[in-house]
Amino acid sequence: METIASLGENASLKRTISRLNKGDHELVGPGDDAAVIKATDGRYVVTTDTMVEGHDFKLEWSSGFDLGWKAVASNIADVAAMGAVPTALVVALVAPASTPVKWLEDFADGLREACQTLAPGCAVVGGDLAAGAQIVIAVTAHGDLENREPVLRSGAQVGDSVAVAGTLGKAASGLQLLFSGNTDAAKSYDEIVAVQLRPQPPVALGKEAALAGVTAMLDLSDGLAKDAARIAAASEVSIQIDPSQLIGFEAVLEGPAQALAINPGTQTAEELTRNWVLGGGEDHSLLATFPAAATIPRGFKVIGKVVQQDQAAVHLGVTPLSAASIDALGWDSVTGN
Amino acid sequence: METIASLGENASLKRTISRLNKGDHELVGPGDDAAVIKATDGRYVVTTDTMVEGHDFKLEWSSGFDLGWKAVASNIADVAAMGAVPTALVVALVAPASTPVKWLEDFADGLREACQTLAPGCAVVGGDLAAGAQIVIAVTAHGDLENREPVLRSGAQVGDSVAVAGTLGKAASGLQLLFSGNTDAAKSYDEIVAVQLRPQPPVALGKEAALAGVTAMLDLSDGLAKDAARIAAASEVSIQIDPSQLIGFEAVLEGPAQALAINPGTQTAEELTRNWVLGGGEDHSLLATFPAAATIPRGFKVIGKVVQQDQAAVHLGVTPLSAASIDALGWDSVTGN
Repeated sequence: METIASLGENASLKRTISRLNKGDHELVGPGDDAAVIKATDGRYVVTTDTMVEGHDFKLEWSSGFDLGWKAVASNIADVAAMGAVPTALVVALVAPASTPVKWLEDFADGLREACQTLAPGCAVVGGDLAAGAQIVIAVTAHGDLENREPVLRSGAQVGDSVAVAGTLGKAASGLQLLFSGNTDAAKSYDEIVAVQLRPQPPVALGKEAALAGVTAMLDLSDGLAKDAARIAAASEVSIQIDPSQLIGFEAVLEGPAQALAINPGTQTAEELTRNWVLGGGEDHSLLATFPAAATIPRGFKVIGKVVQQDQAAVHLGVTPLSAASIDALGWDSVTGN
Repeated sequence: METIASLGENASLKRTISRLNKGDHELVGPGDDAAVIKATDGRYVVTTDTMVEGHDFKLEWSSGFDLGWKAVASNIADVAAMGAVPTALVVALVAPASTPVKWLEDFADGLREACQTLAPGCAVVGGDLAAGAQIVIAVTAHGDLENREPVLRSGAQVGDSVAVAGTLGKAASGLQLLFSGNTDAAKSYDEIVAVQLRPQPPVALGKEAALAGVTAMLDLSDGLAKDAARIAAASEVSIQIDPSQLIGFEAVLEGPAQALAINPGTQTAEELTRNWVLGGGEDHSLLATFPAAATIPRGFKVIGKVVQQDQAAVHLGVTPLSAASIDALGWDSVTGN
């Protein structure tokens, strides 16, 4: 079997690059010491994120295609959260020398398809391939603000509506289905598992939110409560989430919750759905705040409001969530909790 | 002892970021979903490169500071090789959960010092920290062409002079000193070992070369012969290196070569110096071609000329180097040969 070691770094890279799409923003593409990318308004947005085998994914659950897709999706969601349009990515891949070239090609296909589907015109413009003990995927994503101001976490104002675009808790529910080893349940809810494996961040809504006058926005990667607390801290406000507005998000997770709650030692189905929706990471949805007068773009759902800062960064209805309970709900990529 | 696991991802990142310098090109720095960087001429240069523990470095030889320094140096050398000025970096770090926070702080100090020393005004503007089995450092570097055309590998013209700025073979010699286990020799030649651990690419000469009319340029990361062959292939020319112009580069490596050649089974001192200079990677020097009429910037040394393309991409004097011999000299980061 052809592996990246038997083929060598340069030939393997060439094989991969040949499967990528060409972006609309490249002046110089892959193959030289560096790429050259257009930044028409004289600025660019840049963010980096890493996926590590065994910590962020397992090869028994994720194909090369899935991982290429997810690496793109999770990074361009950060670009979208700035109100920018994704333009160009560079991808550093570390993989065991025994990795089949076929896997690498599958990974490249995932990169390409995610770019073309989620952010047409965006492409991988450079990369690096190195050997290591486990697969590590480090992506740096770039975006164009198209003369708009960047949308920060710090702009939320008291009285703003809090809204979310995309799924809430599906990625976490999908992960727990995979971890349960209950393959029947995972098959029955494959649409939910798919959100974990191939997230579909609402990338185009980042720009729409900016045009609609969004005051703060971020990519929901570590869970609603934890990420809402980040906006609250940066904006010096508190955020009050209306639990009745979460019912719809919880309802779609009832099936997997019921399937998993029968395992001894698991939480009840009600606890599972609530924790997934409030604490589940990796949905890569957009959490945003809009002035009361704004016309919130279709695709966002209002789930709460911005209130005066008090002791708790986030309230669920009238119940303040303590910092400890928010930490317990959220996800830390180093500790894995 | 405080580790990144005991402190958590966010607190560890904050601790690191507080040690970094602020760059001249940031509109939005670390702390949001993404940074926003100036691209005054409406374009930016971008490149990514990875360092993997056990493959690219050993923790017994390199401190956190060394690795931060080297990660910056090796990446901004690629930016310089485009004729650009380094402006902004993002750094993704994977490290075992047991890694001391002290190591991370030391790493951040290395990032900062390399930026300030090698490319004043350039800074780390974002990053990511994740847990993994081994340390992986993935850096993406950006640069500003300041309205100049990017310098590609493909512009070399027959009749051009071939010149190098920076060291040749010192990084490889330093590596072999470390691998030899001969600590006396490594200490005696600590200036050569230092080139391996903390390379000093001639970053400012990238812009100077561009202003002087350089026709092709690259960062010497995989060895003179292999990288010269890349310019030759991209430019559809051959490159003739004058062995008499390499004597000075070989002479400074004679001490370590003599110290290592006494080991049974090693090459002769003469073979060692020749192979280091022709095949040694990681000097991160600049290899460039200049028109005969150009005033080559001080800091570059002419070592050969561009000739008509023939069967061999690189000639050493009148001796053509076969593709196989070039491969045998050079460095492949996947196979490690």
